[in-house]
Amino acid sequence: MRRTNFFIPTLRDTPKDAQIESHRLMLRAGMIQQASAGIYSWLPLGFRSLKKIEQIVREEQNAAGAQELLMPTLQAADLWKESGRYEDYGKELLRITDRHDRDMLYGPTNEEQITEIFRSHVKSYKALPMNLYHIQWKFRDEVRPRFGVMRGREFLMKDAYSFDLNYRDAVHSYNKMFLAYLKTYERMGLKAIPMMADSGPIGGDMSHEFVILAETGESAVFYQRDWFEDKNLSALEEAANLQNLVDGYLSKYAATDEKHDPLKCPIDEKDLISTRGIEVGHIFYFGTKYSEALGAKITGPDGDEAPVHMGSYGVGVSRLVGAIIEASHDEKGIVWPEAVSPFRVGLVNIKSDDKKCVEVCEDVYSSFNETKLDILYDDRDERAGAKLNDMDLIGLPWQVIVGPRGIKSGRVELKNRRSGTTEDLPIETLKQRFLTT
Amino acid sequence: MRRTNFFIPTLRDTPKDAQIESHRLMLRAGMIQQASAGIYSWLPLGFRSLKKIEQIVREEQNAAGAQELLMPTLQAADLWKESGRYEDYGKELLRITDRHDRDMLYGPTNEEQITEIFRSHVKSYKALPMNLYHIQWKFRDEVRPRFGVMRGREFLMKDAYSFDLNYRDAVHSYNKMFLAYLKTYERMGLKAIPMMADSGPIGGDMSHEFVILAETGESAVFYQRDWFEDKNLSALEEAANLQNLVDGYLSKYAATDEKHDPLKCPIDEKDLISTRGIEVGHIFYFGTKYSEALGAKITGPDGDEAPVHMGSYGVGVSRLVGAIIEASHDEKGIVWPEAVSPFRVGLVNIKSDDKKCVEVCEDVYSSFNETKLDILYDDRDERAGAKLNDMDLIGLPWQVIVGPRGIKSGRVELKNRRSGTTEDLPIETLKQRFLTT
Repeated sequence: MRRTNFFIPTLRDTPKDAQIESHRLMLRAGMIQQASAGIYSWLPLGFRSLKKIEQIVREEQNAAGAQELLMPTLQAADLWKESGRYEDYGKELLRITDRHDRDMLYGPTNEEQITEIFRSHVKSYKALPMNLYHIQWKFRDEVRPRFGVMRGREFLMKDAYSFDLNYRDAVHSYNKMFLAYLKTYERMGLKAIPMMADSGPIGGDMSHEFVILAETGESAVFYQRDWFEDKNLSALEEAANLQNLVDGYLSKYAATDEKHDPLKCPIDEKDLISTRGIEVGHIFYFGTKYSEALGAKITGPDGDEAPVHMGSYGVGVSRLVGAIIEASHDEKGIVWPEAVSPFRVGLVNIKSDDKKCVEVCEDVYSSFNETKLDILYDDRDERAGAKLNDMDLIGLPWQVIVGPRGIKSGRVELKNRRSGTTEDLPIETLKQRFLTT
Repeated sequence: MRRTNFFIPTLRDTPKDAQIESHRLMLRAGMIQQASAGIYSWLPLGFRSLKKIEQIVREEQNAAGAQELLMPTLQAADLWKESGRYEDYGKELLRITDRHDRDMLYGPTNEEQITEIFRSHVKSYKALPMNLYHIQWKFRDEVRPRFGVMRGREFLMKDAYSFDLNYRDAVHSYNKMFLAYLKTYERMGLKAIPMMADSGPIGGDMSHEFVILAETGESAVFYQRDWFEDKNLSALEEAANLQNLVDGYLSKYAATDEKHDPLKCPIDEKDLISTRGIEVGHIFYFGTKYSEALGAKITGPDGDEAPVHMGSYGVGVSRLVGAIIEASHDEKGIVWPEAVSPFRVGLVNIKSDDKKCVEVCEDVYSSFNETKLDILYDDRDERAGAKLNDMDLIGLPWQVIVGPRGIKSGRVELKNRRSGTTEDLPIETLKQRFLTT
């Protein structure tokens, strides 16, 4: 993509009302624009990262055997009255009345709706296990939205729902999601700790939050000092026994504020780290809470009818964009992990009125485009300093810098955004490096 | 995908409350489920077609130089009060009050919001032309929602917005979208006629609806008998002069009911066809209507400030799923055009307890999967008749039918859903046919 054809309204000044770094950086890098309190438009640069994150989530859900569908944003209030949550949910539930005075709501989550789909069609255990998910916009009418997309009102979430015959099978489904979540975050370059968590308005007996550590995180978290030792995600691939693997991850202490009780904590205070974290996922097993309320029953192999066992599994897709930046930035700007960067490579012509420089840039740009390699070419007629600062701000993992001195000997500079290290490379070597991987 | 792992709740009985064939077929094929009046969940099969249609729309928008972003579903009412549409829009606008008693609305369209994004950042003609689009759920509170996803309340729409310095440039942007739309529909296997149309609540001087012909279409349309002659879309690729091409498409008469005046119609009655059609897209040039109201001004080359010229361009993505089925079905079920079919090939084992048949199916299935060819394998333990009827109902373009008689001589049956013709093919020939194209 040429920068002159790509709308990235970067800001020079730091926005005053943004309290945390990810929010400031997303505004400064022209990724988002506030539409109203806690509601954002995703400008083209931000949209690309959002889509890459969504796609990783989707691929790992599919790989774990979940099936994608799509439920609407607005729901009839009736089902929520059936489950009892219409009254319970409080003011975060955005209640709406349509032109015929029917009560509706903007879904903050979809347990009722998916249970209604399930109960309409599935009657026998033979269709189980089943896991249905969607990636859809949700709304929670936060009293004080803040931290940009990290605690917005309208947000994109992946929510999956598992259906099983009994507790044992339901735990197996839970474990599959548990491990799929670990893989999902790892692909995004994040270290997420699954922590014992409170189940809140979803309800249920078993619940884990996936938390990434960040000093600016919204909540206090606690974990065992050596938690990150001996964690080998590649072992997941050969998982013979899911339960063993999950147990391995849960063998060391980690809990959110709500679940952590200093008096009952099983580990010594000197081994406990108390810090802050950002929740990037939350999974629940809640058994028959919704299936009983809504009458979603299945016939088992013995011919008896019983409510189906359910769990639900959320990933905050739009929140992850902020969370990743919160975990990965420096004083110059964002430092994208490669898998979720809006573009993989940025190309900067530091002398845009030099004919040879333009030629080299065009050549590199078209080679990269031919192989569909994500590249953003800053072809603007701007000062070199402004372009380089912008590139650091938007934080693409690799920068190819083309200047008159280098190209005299057929070389360009390749800069790694994270380490800051640069290499002088012959143009052909540069192409080979990227185009063969 | 194995049918036993893929949730397709087909119905035997024809749903009573569905008035048109596409709605009946979508329900019977397990593509959608009604959530409440005019609001649908997209079950896995329907979701796949929806996503394929969305992707074609996206690719053609990108190819025409439009940039994708994403605006939220809920908007603050303020901007709509600025433009004057908050009062004008009537009861189809779903008005919402949040917990702080702020007036909001579920966007039925986004002219105000995109103008606000534009005016915040763009001040100079140098950034033009610019075309920004998004694919997002919209809501129109129809008084009597009907025809399934064709006239629902919550619907997925692509809407693009062009920004230009003056009328001449704006017409060029309009023409680019005009031609992109023709390509978009052609890729979906549809013949869409651009018709002179009324601009309704969007406003503006120039407007075309893209209409596909169907007897069950919601509105009356009129077009010249020989309209489809000499239309050569491949010529679009070499478009030297956009205006000439567009003029070619508009040289023969075609108009919607609102625009057609029998007394002023320029062509003879005997050359006029009067039929019904389904609107699948609508484009508008409305000049400075919104930029004036919202103060979106740009400085031209002469240094003078003036409101920017705008157009907007909508494609009904979710409605297209219904429209395509309305235009392409028979008495047995849906007949998908290949590009938008949920899967390209269906594989049916007509004797699921026959070990050899299972082996052949597994072999074909894994070969197709390896090359990422979309295939749905009906591996259920069901009667052959039920499976074949289901395949016809869901309407995948190709069916591979495996039975004991054929495989004795190493052959399977390949059926074309549209023509109904079948061929007996050696298994290797089948693979080559699909895997090399």
